[in-house]
Amino acid sequence: MKKYKLILEYDGTAYLGWQSQLNDLSIQEVVEKALKKITKIKTNVHASGRTDSGVHAEAQIAHFSSNSKMTARQFHRALNSMLPHDITIRDVVEVSKEFNSRRDAKSKIYRYTLLNRTYPSALHYKRCWYIYEKLNISNMKRAARLLVGKHDFHSFRAAKSSAKSSIKEIYSVVLKKRGDFLEITFEGNSFLKHMVRNLVGTLVWVGKGYFKYTDVVEILNAKDRRKAGPTAPPQGLCLIKVIYD
Amino acid sequence: MKKYKLILEYDGTAYLGWQSQLNDLSIQEVVEKALKKITKIKTNVHASGRTDSGVHAEAQIAHFSSNSKMTARQFHRALNSMLPHDITIRDVVEVSKEFNSRRDAKSKIYRYTLLNRTYPSALHYKRCWYIYEKLNISNMKRAARLLVGKHDFHSFRAAKSSAKSSIKEIYSVVLKKRGDFLEITFEGNSFLKHMVRNLVGTLVWVGKGYFKYTDVVEILNAKDRRKAGPTAPPQGLCLIKVIYD
Repeated sequence: MKKYKLILEYDGTAYLGWQSQLNDLSIQEVVEKALKKITKIKTNVHASGRTDSGVHAEAQIAHFSSNSKMTARQFHRALNSMLPHDITIRDVVEVSKEFNSRRDAKSKIYRYTLLNRTYPSALHYKRCWYIYEKLNISNMKRAARLLVGKHDFHSFRAAKSSAKSSIKEIYSVVLKKRGDFLEITFEGNSFLKHMVRNLVGTLVWVGKGYFKYTDVVEILNAKDRRKAGPTAPPQGLCLIKVIYD
Repeated sequence: MKKYKLILEYDGTAYLGWQSQLNDLSIQEVVEKALKKITKIKTNVHASGRTDSGVHAEAQIAHFSSNSKMTARQFHRALNSMLPHDITIRDVVEVSKEFNSRRDAKSKIYRYTLLNRTYPSALHYKRCWYIYEKLNISNMKRAARLLVGKHDFHSFRAAKSSAKSSIKEIYSVVLKKRGDFLEITFEGNSFLKHMVRNLVGTLVWVGKGYFKYTDVVEILNAKDRRKAGPTAPPQGLCLIKVIYD
């Protein structure tokens, strides 16, 4: 039995997220079906974490075990020839039997893309959240700095989040303008369900002036989801990198 | 009667091109229907030129005339609120009654995007042509230089092209690598049907070594479509800019 690491790129538009659910079209299900066609054996694929419906990935990490005699390179080509256009395997690497894509992940980087101008974008509408009102980016940067560090992010977790603890550490939040686009990049040890999208919704409310930038401290301290801003829509979010030792 | 210039951005994936054809879904038809809903009067919209089925535009230029009392700004907002996500109006500007988006265009800039690596891209597959075999970009640049200038591009026109003359002038062809992507940007006074896609298909054959770079001179001189390379697929092509005096 050998273990393989997968690096996956996907456009989440057509899927109900990474995780398989009965009768739902998930990315996991599509990849597992492709592996079954190749190896003739049902093979489970485990990712570093779930991504929500409509969320994209530049480099999701997953792993699977197989008794197949195929090399990593052969798996790479065979999988890409089976998978639909919106799921690509960037690489397959043989790893030690101890590797676990979820448990071993040290940190994750997510990027959220906003479009801030007076008209939307036909070429990018599936990859960003379009905001008409002019955002105060300086105040958004000030608020972002207050989110960095180890905090109880209970106010930013989804109601349905099943994680035992809501204490997480954010290493950095970087805002970068690219023309009319504003990219917000989060790095942290791990993230609660909807946490990045709730943080973005809150930063956008700071940018619109509905919140003062210092309000994010009060929202953190309140430990109450109703105090934070709205959940940003999924299409602006992309999992950029999972970092291992 | 006032005249307005439209700057349009569109994702051509779902459309049969710019031009209206009976029972076909064209971008022109969708924009004209939106204008009719707004003004209650059938209004023709004329573009700087057609784009093929599946070809995108960052800034197509079109014009229309109207007796409406609406300002350009009001047209801008009203049109964007009517149009589907994959067609955006970037701006509406009132212009002189003499303006004609097609006749007055001095030059056009098209960009074609190739992806050259051993696996495709889930996030970009609708915007590029994926080429597995490693391309010799130096030779492609040498060939591109030989295409610049005033030539008879008969060998690069579509069989169905209805233009009277196939003599056109290309001002520049620039190849630029962006990671695994290769962007080829063409500026010329005007282009024949499929001309950019036929030039790209030929440059790709140079890159693959099927043609020597000097072969493009012979292909130009042959004035025979069968001598050139294949027609590159439409999804890699985007109309970037139309230039007026």
